[in-house]
Amino acid sequence: MNQEYSSHLLEHAVTELSRLPGIGRKTALRLALHLLRRDESEGIALGEAIIDLRKNICYCSVCHNISETEVCDICASSLRDHSQICVVENVNDVMSVERTRQFGGVYHVLGGLISPLDGIGPESLQIDSLVERVSSEDIKEVILALSATMEGDTTNFYIYRKLSVFPEIKITQLARGVAVGNELEYTDEVTLGRSLLQRTLFSDSFTED
Amino acid sequence: MNQEYSSHLLEHAVTELSRLPGIGRKTALRLALHLLRRDESEGIALGEAIIDLRKNICYCSVCHNISETEVCDICASSLRDHSQICVVENVNDVMSVERTRQFGGVYHVLGGLISPLDGIGPESLQIDSLVERVSSEDIKEVILALSATMEGDTTNFYIYRKLSVFPEIKITQLARGVAVGNELEYTDEVTLGRSLLQRTLFSDSFTED
Repeated sequence: MNQEYSSHLLEHAVTELSRLPGIGRKTALRLALHLLRRDESEGIALGEAIIDLRKNICYCSVCHNISETEVCDICASSLRDHSQICVVENVNDVMSVERTRQFGGVYHVLGGLISPLDGIGPESLQIDSLVERVSSEDIKEVILALSATMEGDTTNFYIYRKLSVFPEIKITQLARGVAVGNELEYTDEVTLGRSLLQRTLFSDSFTED
Repeated sequence: MNQEYSSHLLEHAVTELSRLPGIGRKTALRLALHLLRRDESEGIALGEAIIDLRKNICYCSVCHNISETEVCDICASSLRDHSQICVVENVNDVMSVERTRQFGGVYHVLGGLISPLDGIGPESLQIDSLVERVSSEDIKEVILALSATMEGDTTNFYIYRKLSVFPEIKITQLARGVAVGNELEYTDEVTLGRSLLQRTLFSDSFTED
């Protein structure tokens, strides 16, 4: 036994917990000792929730979002507009867009962004399946909702080129501009420049709603 | 279903993870999504380690340290000096003292410190069982290894008073002084004052080893 821990079980739990991102062995030990201090049921509930999550979650065969069924709730819903696809980087972003309550279409999760430096090419992302979806389903608009970073822009452009063989489909991207609530003084010049070039009619801000 | 998460299982895992200290819902979501990206076996190993920890660890009936058996490895060991008890606040401190490799005796884990403001009185700590151990076993020395805080000092004094009915037992406490490696400039005045009052013979620092 490693003399550092009073018990094999504790050492094992610390090792497993410290595999999580941002959790070192010291934090892992603190978490394990916390679990020991609390009710037995609480620790067991945590362990079971993790096993359940890992065993029973799969990916939607249509949009690649996480799901408990072969096709996710959003893709299976008749209340959503299936002619509008919002392309996002990952599962997290689906939740971010859903929280806005401004989107009634369906999603397509790429599983990352093109990043040659990290060895991520278009073929390791769900881009071919997007093109396949667009060609076989009745799609009217593809919204590119990727991060406003170089990788996001590269991926946007790559997808735009791939989809340009379908001229009848509208391809849009998220508006770039000053974030709501931000002061102009602290907005970087690139964002400010873009938001000047892409300025919108003031009257649109109260007539659109 | 809470619209915020794409899946019940994910939401449940996030809720359970966010019960851990220092982990909010955002971090919990990040951890859960990390587990989903990694091998299934990794997530299951984590879940099982936590359940195992919580189900199979108990507390040593002698010293109250965590243990996998009724009496912990240290208390059961014939290689340890059972006449010397090191009193510590919690399980973590047992590991800290063990790491120094300077102590060959046994432990007594109080489970906290006296802190009237937090409603922790002597009766909620393992102090009576310490007195009971001292009175029934053949103890020569009790080392008070508590934090150098007000709560630690209060607890030290309380235990000292309780054990003063056994005048043949030596009661010691950890030396207070300048931490090894610390510069004098950054040592607080109370520590510096104490270390002056309790100065030791320089010759002792190389003859004792």
